[in-house]
Amino acid sequence: MTKNTKVNAAILIIGNEILSGRTQDTNTSTLATWLNSIGVKVQEARVIPDIEKTIVDNLNVLRKENDYVFTTGGIGPTHDDITAESVSKAFGLKYEIHKEGYKILEAYYKPNEFNEGRQKMIWMPKNAQLILNPTSGAPGFSVENVFCLPGVPSIMKSMLGGLKNKIVGGKPILSHTISLKTVESEIANSLTEVQDNNKDVEIGSYPFFHAGKLGVSIVLRSENQSRIDECNSQILNFVNKKKIEVVDR
Amino acid sequence: MTKNTKVNAAILIIGNEILSGRTQDTNTSTLATWLNSIGVKVQEARVIPDIEKTIVDNLNVLRKENDYVFTTGGIGPTHDDITAESVSKAFGLKYEIHKEGYKILEAYYKPNEFNEGRQKMIWMPKNAQLILNPTSGAPGFSVENVFCLPGVPSIMKSMLGGLKNKIVGGKPILSHTISLKTVESEIANSLTEVQDNNKDVEIGSYPFFHAGKLGVSIVLRSENQSRIDECNSQILNFVNKKKIEVVDR
Repeated sequence: MTKNTKVNAAILIIGNEILSGRTQDTNTSTLATWLNSIGVKVQEARVIPDIEKTIVDNLNVLRKENDYVFTTGGIGPTHDDITAESVSKAFGLKYEIHKEGYKILEAYYKPNEFNEGRQKMIWMPKNAQLILNPTSGAPGFSVENVFCLPGVPSIMKSMLGGLKNKIVGGKPILSHTISLKTVESEIANSLTEVQDNNKDVEIGSYPFFHAGKLGVSIVLRSENQSRIDECNSQILNFVNKKKIEVVDR
Repeated sequence: MTKNTKVNAAILIIGNEILSGRTQDTNTSTLATWLNSIGVKVQEARVIPDIEKTIVDNLNVLRKENDYVFTTGGIGPTHDDITAESVSKAFGLKYEIHKEGYKILEAYYKPNEFNEGRQKMIWMPKNAQLILNPTSGAPGFSVENVFCLPGVPSIMKSMLGGLKNKIVGGKPILSHTISLKTVESEIANSLTEVQDNNKDVEIGSYPFFHAGKLGVSIVLRSENQSRIDECNSQILNFVNKKKIEVVDR
């Protein structure tokens, strides 16, 4: 994948439960929405199983190709939580008790509750930076450009606020959607023409069928509002000529 | 990734709209659930943008590492639908009008409706096999072990039935879930012991928080029901000793 001057990221979802179909992943969407809002473009997302070699191999590819990598899953107390140990191996770092993390959990739990299972959650790569967890105590962590978050969506989401100062994005990616009462094939040629004349704006076309309505959403994406506005007016121009109705979506 | 005697697959979700967070992918979950039910294990899923080189590169890795690859997205009539042309390039095949596909769409649409945009949907890799579409006419296609489906979830799902005879799975992967009113750290050690004694059964542990209930679901997966039953009884054994309540989930 070619790198450009923009800030980009990959998402690595770790967990057999997604690949078996048992659990519907929503972390990709949550992370992607948040990253886009702070000017980080998601280049790729991968879902992989709880297998150490697979985690290490994928991480070592993605962390070199991207400014940031975000992992979710596999940082809990059970035997199938192997993300922290795998990240240690990927970076060639010692896997050990994180002293600051230990203090946090020691204070979080009652003395008789801070058992071996819970202590596993603060075994991390040496010198990892903590990512604080306002929901359930156990922190995530980062090593260089890799940020490791839990898999439970509500907990994962609650930890993003604490990451803001650690992630340096580019210009936020702006978007504008035009929804039309039409089918894609009616507008395909005109839309291709607009895309050809505006190569710096990403134009996506997405058919929708819901609540008895059928139509197409055209999504314009760019860092530059004036370029979006220009495309928007070119599209409305052919839409008006074709007498296609603009609808809410 | 090491291959074993089992039948495996990768899922390749093609579409900027997933990576921007605009659209929540559900095709991975639908495909994974269906593939598991016919004895095909999903090794990996990737979400990639509508960029030809990225599609070609990912496809050429995944089709060599897996028995099957399923793509979704990018086979419609608009400029951002580049899956068929990219698959042609990945296989070094000519990208051309599929004669049988042409006849299907010619019959599906009224003569004045079968416009250039719609004709784009039957440009495919030379000698591609069609995957019939009972919902909206335009077929998907396969080349060797790569199966290309549309991105719209309801249409994609409706086409799976027609694939059954083309996909040869292994033994179906069976699963059993035990939900407990506990937290993971309470059972982590005992569960590790059961996993260590039953390495051929995949044991996953998933905390849940919903409808005011908090607990852990333990998922046992194997092709062999008797092995699942054995693990189940070992788990219920320690659950009873610890006086942990089994709950519905």
